[in-house]
Amino acid sequence: MATEEPRSVTIHDVANLAGVAVSSVSRALSSHPDVSPAMKAKVLAAAAELGYSPDPGAQSLRSGFTRTVGFVVRDFANPFFGEIIHGVEEALNDAGYTLLVTNSSGDPLREVDRLSLLRQRRVDALLVSSISEASTRTSKAVASFNRPVVLIDRDPRKMKVASILLDHAAGVREATDDLLRLGHRRIAMITGSSAIRPTRERMRGYTEALDAAGVAVDEELMASGAFSSSFARETTERLLALPRGERPTAIIAGGVVTTIGVLEAFTELGQRLGADVSLVVCDDLPWLRVMRPRISVVTRDAEEMGRQAAALALEMIKGAEPRSVTLPTAYEVRETSLPPAE
Amino acid sequence: MATEEPRSVTIHDVANLAGVAVSSVSRALSSHPDVSPAMKAKVLAAAAELGYSPDPGAQSLRSGFTRTVGFVVRDFANPFFGEIIHGVEEALNDAGYTLLVTNSSGDPLREVDRLSLLRQRRVDALLVSSISEASTRTSKAVASFNRPVVLIDRDPRKMKVASILLDHAAGVREATDDLLRLGHRRIAMITGSSAIRPTRERMRGYTEALDAAGVAVDEELMASGAFSSSFARETTERLLALPRGERPTAIIAGGVVTTIGVLEAFTELGQRLGADVSLVVCDDLPWLRVMRPRISVVTRDAEEMGRQAAALALEMIKGAEPRSVTLPTAYEVRETSLPPAE
Repeated sequence: MATEEPRSVTIHDVANLAGVAVSSVSRALSSHPDVSPAMKAKVLAAAAELGYSPDPGAQSLRSGFTRTVGFVVRDFANPFFGEIIHGVEEALNDAGYTLLVTNSSGDPLREVDRLSLLRQRRVDALLVSSISEASTRTSKAVASFNRPVVLIDRDPRKMKVASILLDHAAGVREATDDLLRLGHRRIAMITGSSAIRPTRERMRGYTEALDAAGVAVDEELMASGAFSSSFARETTERLLALPRGERPTAIIAGGVVTTIGVLEAFTELGQRLGADVSLVVCDDLPWLRVMRPRISVVTRDAEEMGRQAAALALEMIKGAEPRSVTLPTAYEVRETSLPPAE
Repeated sequence: MATEEPRSVTIHDVANLAGVAVSSVSRALSSHPDVSPAMKAKVLAAAAELGYSPDPGAQSLRSGFTRTVGFVVRDFANPFFGEIIHGVEEALNDAGYTLLVTNSSGDPLREVDRLSLLRQRRVDALLVSSISEASTRTSKAVASFNRPVVLIDRDPRKMKVASILLDHAAGVREATDDLLRLGHRRIAMITGSSAIRPTRERMRGYTEALDAAGVAVDEELMASGAFSSSFARETTERLLALPRGERPTAIIAGGVVTTIGVLEAFTELGQRLGADVSLVVCDDLPWLRVMRPRISVVTRDAEEMGRQAAALALEMIKGAEPRSVTLPTAYEVRETSLPPAE
């Protein structure tokens, strides 16, 4: 960090040093898509060398756009968001846009604050993975954003926003069907907050499969609460402590953090995955590749979610109307979907 | 997304609706630290209701500060960054600052571009987890940032920047000592790019322990390359295919992504963790809690790294000189540090 202000460097100095036209410098520095990587490298190197930084005010006033997209994430610590963000980044980068991410950490007040910040920063579009669809403040902040908004796996309701939706119900229905076919009648569904669509859709897939098989839904076996590993661990421990006949013989875990908690309970209680209690988890992650036995999973393509969300934002920036895109989920049988042990 | 511009709402409208003074609205919306959560909630709710957004230009010109801190991350998909970011966010939030994160995805050109963007966006301070300390372009962009910069586990060299450093060497030295004490003489060290400090420090701890024990360093067993699971998987497969006597009897995996690749190779080759080949990994993560056997690990506190990095940035914003803070690592013996099998 230099303590004094740098001497005034102009765009002409950068063009001279890079040996290119001033207009090329301007295009390269504003991340214009029609700039070759080689040209961009040359200009960035010269700008870095001279410590040149264009005037952002002038630049965004000229175009009306900042070539940035904002993303308010619910929980950075969830590795699933890392994959979504990676997909968003790649698609935006190809189009010459940059992503700015900010975290609401599950705090509704902070969420509204972050939305307001990104609006002030004049991002060209906004991606939101909100904490709760029931929050009036968040809905109002989203509805009044005045730039394209894409909801990530959230119900758009009556808002004029785009959305990337996952067909969670289909994958969970398939998983429940398979467990029923194997002979399970007491299947627990443990998941996070029902204030967001993924949880509700997973519960819908679960109850639809039970209904279709004529198996009554036992409220005790359907636990939604917090997206936290401790909620999932305690719920699993409670359910597995039930007397024989009431105890679930199979568990479906809805979400990454839930999965960690359910697995903690299995190890703590010395329950063998599959052999003692069947298990299906939602969302495939790298570390599931190295665990044995291999856990059955309802998969979705997180990177593709990110890419499609970015594509929706970009088409709206160009004037398209908001629309919803639904991506599939799929049940993948591995080694923990077995007939009931008792 | 509304398609027409909203009618002009002023700060007075917000103050009226919230029933507070205009100065309170101003303080609440600029995330001033001396605002109670209740006041902030009231103001944000009123602003959201009216669709009010303060003029960011005027606001930042007035104070000279934007109350935002930027963070350029090397790889969002690495869950370890999620934990660091969580720590940064918490500390910044307590101080009334907001974090904006952007990803370089391991691309040096993109890294310089992101640094330039955050500079244009006039963040009050910058956190950087750079791809390579050898990149002249990145160093120049950092040195000319003109606002406080904190490097995350990178060597500050001669730059006038702060840094959070981890004592990786100590933890890896302890781990290597323990494996030597158990009788291992052929210990492999598999890690990522040596263009960044963590890798070099891990290699230093490893070689220092071998030197102290009078065991010659075998270059073939010391593999640094890419921070990718495929590099780690292929290296592990190659090493475990060596004839008896050349084959390592223990492996130290340096980093999260490396760990995934090493574990993939173990499962593919049917090698039992600990029983066939001892294993120590660097960085403890939630999913290591649920794997059996429990893998020995060199731990560090990622959230604390984040909190301390934010604290350095905040003290520099207030005028403090840049300094370096070093945090410890520790070797934690679990179930995969065993005597050599052959």
